[in-house]
Amino acid sequence: MTDEYYIKKTIEFAKKGMANNEGGPFGAIIVKDDKIVGRGNNKVTSLKDPTAHAEIVAIRDACKNLNSFQLDGCVIYSSCEPCPMCLGAIYWARPDRLVFASSKDDASKVGFDDSFIYEELDLPVAKRKIETTQIMRDEANILFEIWSDKDNKIDY
Amino acid sequence: MTDEYYIKKTIEFAKKGMANNEGGPFGAIIVKDDKIVGRGNNKVTSLKDPTAHAEIVAIRDACKNLNSFQLDGCVIYSSCEPCPMCLGAIYWARPDRLVFASSKDDASKVGFDDSFIYEELDLPVAKRKIETTQIMRDEANILFEIWSDKDNKIDY
Repeated sequence: MTDEYYIKKTIEFAKKGMANNEGGPFGAIIVKDDKIVGRGNNKVTSLKDPTAHAEIVAIRDACKNLNSFQLDGCVIYSSCEPCPMCLGAIYWARPDRLVFASSKDDASKVGFDDSFIYEELDLPVAKRKIETTQIMRDEANILFEIWSDKDNKIDY
Repeated sequence: MTDEYYIKKTIEFAKKGMANNEGGPFGAIIVKDDKIVGRGNNKVTSLKDPTAHAEIVAIRDACKNLNSFQLDGCVIYSSCEPCPMCLGAIYWARPDRLVFASSKDDASKVGFDDSFIYEELDLPVAKRKIETTQIMRDEANILFEIWSDKDNKIDY
């Protein structure tokens, strides 16, 4: 199947999710070896979960179905350019490719503006809008020593 | 209770999670009105979910407990500086404050390096390491028209 076929599917999922009042107008699917292995639409308001963007829902679904925390060999299709949270999730999941349709600027015109997150990420911690403080660095760094010394750890 | 008290709790959760082989050395809690309303530790490998970072697990837990997709009036405590995915989630959840302990540079020294994600986010789409393509923008933008015209939508 073509990229166009799968993007059409993301649009279908987004439409269906909106019709069911599950959340915003976004859909995503994940494909491996030309088979759909994960699907998602935005469910922020219905699940009351601010992380339930279409891409995150689809990544979690694909990982469950593939029984893996990595999406090697997969393509992520999204009806819209992923936000920084979803891009972060995509980089951690490590798919082979990403295909999206609407731009983040298209989304911002109807109230879904993520530009402030890009701006915040580029600011030093002390200048961010959400007041951010660092304390007890040495105490917490002990966790990394324990991790380094751990024999039976599973790297990811 | 003080910020120190709550950061100590995130360190405890991280230690326990590591001991149980649930995932990496990270813990987070969410506090509202001096009560812990959400907690999490990294569960990437045990849940086989690349999005199951401590902060995301804690945000989802707090939202469930508060029955809300927003964390107004809450403070997020994390044993380590959040990665871009988690920072994105934090901005969408809109807590009042963020307190963290270890730095991202401390984490990168034991193999948890998220600097490549910051770098990728700042690159134009065409230059990113995960091959990214935009297609069918006009077809997908219809979703935003449907959303704009929708009478019974829940904004978020």
